[in-house]
Amino acid sequence: MSPTAAYESAPQPSADKSPIAIICGGGAFPGAVADAVNARGRPVYLFLLRGYADPALTHYPHEWVKLGSLATFVGSSRKRGIKEIVIIGSVVRPRLAQLGFDWKSALLLSRLARLFLGGDNNLLSGVAKIFEDNGLSVRAPHEVAPEILMPEGLVTRLEPSVQEREDIEIGRSLLHAIDSFDVGQAVVIAGRRVVAIEGAEGTQGLLERVHAMRQTGRLRLREREGVLVKLPKPSQDRRIDMPAIGNDTIRQAKAAGLAGIAVQAMGTLVPDAQKFVETAEAENIFVVALPPLDRTKA
Amino acid sequence: MSPTAAYESAPQPSADKSPIAIICGGGAFPGAVADAVNARGRPVYLFLLRGYADPALTHYPHEWVKLGSLATFVGSSRKRGIKEIVIIGSVVRPRLAQLGFDWKSALLLSRLARLFLGGDNNLLSGVAKIFEDNGLSVRAPHEVAPEILMPEGLVTRLEPSVQEREDIEIGRSLLHAIDSFDVGQAVVIAGRRVVAIEGAEGTQGLLERVHAMRQTGRLRLREREGVLVKLPKPSQDRRIDMPAIGNDTIRQAKAAGLAGIAVQAMGTLVPDAQKFVETAEAENIFVVALPPLDRTKA
Repeated sequence: MSPTAAYESAPQPSADKSPIAIICGGGAFPGAVADAVNARGRPVYLFLLRGYADPALTHYPHEWVKLGSLATFVGSSRKRGIKEIVIIGSVVRPRLAQLGFDWKSALLLSRLARLFLGGDNNLLSGVAKIFEDNGLSVRAPHEVAPEILMPEGLVTRLEPSVQEREDIEIGRSLLHAIDSFDVGQAVVIAGRRVVAIEGAEGTQGLLERVHAMRQTGRLRLREREGVLVKLPKPSQDRRIDMPAIGNDTIRQAKAAGLAGIAVQAMGTLVPDAQKFVETAEAENIFVVALPPLDRTKA
Repeated sequence: MSPTAAYESAPQPSADKSPIAIICGGGAFPGAVADAVNARGRPVYLFLLRGYADPALTHYPHEWVKLGSLATFVGSSRKRGIKEIVIIGSVVRPRLAQLGFDWKSALLLSRLARLFLGGDNNLLSGVAKIFEDNGLSVRAPHEVAPEILMPEGLVTRLEPSVQEREDIEIGRSLLHAIDSFDVGQAVVIAGRRVVAIEGAEGTQGLLERVHAMRQTGRLRLREREGVLVKLPKPSQDRRIDMPAIGNDTIRQAKAAGLAGIAVQAMGTLVPDAQKFVETAEAENIFVVALPPLDRTKA
């Protein structure tokens, strides 16, 4: 199958014509999801988070909302017969004082704010439960928009070396070893050495740290050495905490002096996989989409 | 046993009167080791690393050496009938150009520089082997100076809460899960959440990251919440890569907003355990010395 086959095939029209609500944070993902759902002929309704969501999305039915007004999502969804909700996009966790939240929602709010950052799986499941208690079903972005899943077989022409394949395997083993802990979707491995493990700082923070360690001489690597390995956790609630990558990831990996990125096919979100790979090619960063865990593939 | 009992008992005089060479990096450890060996009546000879070692150590027989001149350690030791060598102290990994090394030692040198930072166990064993091939036996600092081992039963009056004990257990489990990887002596856990895992950045870098995440609001914790758990790895070459803590660790943990520190008794180096605990008390940071792995203790 050609790398782009998943994109060339027309999306299957959806039988369900009830609107899907999308709570939109920042970045390219919310638009990619809205476009994909829309292309299937299913209406979308966007809750655009003030200060985060892309104003270009206002060509869809929408309302601007504060992150703090959780009641809005529930009330407005109910009024519009919305039964399904998707949460997607980035939200830099704001300081509470900046939010203008209503006090009733304060607790839920601080939970909601964390939702957009990942790294707290129990919490995410908890928030999903809150929506569900209010009659809203939380759907994974890739359930309603499979186009944003990194497909199998999509890779750069640039390939990992034998050493880099070994580094990828070390990264995979390490992430597997900490599966049962609610942390760490990503690691950086270079020359068999575990350079950095992701905690609450997120993947961007992880890559910035690798960059900084190279700058100070704390980390001595060849130019263009090391691999970012970023994988979903088996224990993860995939509706709301799939690993996500984008062109920013490539630029951050490049700045960190890495040679490539390994993700899991069908287990990683990317706003536009084809463009992602093109950007990687242009930046001389290899991308490998490892086969999904639940299948065997040479 | 009183917390200070290990220090009040007089050191046993050593039967062996051949001098021990100590390659001294920065910080308080080299002096603590020299004093302890000296107190046993065994002569010491110090290789003071220019730019790193404390000039106050010059009251011992010594020579100043560049990190780059590996041949010096071997030649000078041989001349003085030295058969045992200890490597201790901190060395911020220098840029090669600053070293003034001789080209012959270049490879060994870059290995030696890494020795002082830890985090690369195979490498450390390799360097030990190089010394041993040259007739020098590399001894663990705590073998020749048991005074620098964190003793059992030494703790602050301030104790961890039930929640903090749970966080310590999570940290211990996580570190255990990545035992087989050559990384990660330390983690920060707060409220059951894995906040940060140490990679090549070291414990100071780890704590600075926690501080930074609190500052930016990326990490929302109560004032004084979270525990640094720092443990030796079973696979570690304990001669040259034991986890080390000191008063700086307390100050960094304090700055990171943590409540306490958990280490392993008899498996952690500390220049002056009694002073360490006093500093912790003064800073309102609890210290727990977990029982050694190879014993059971309530």
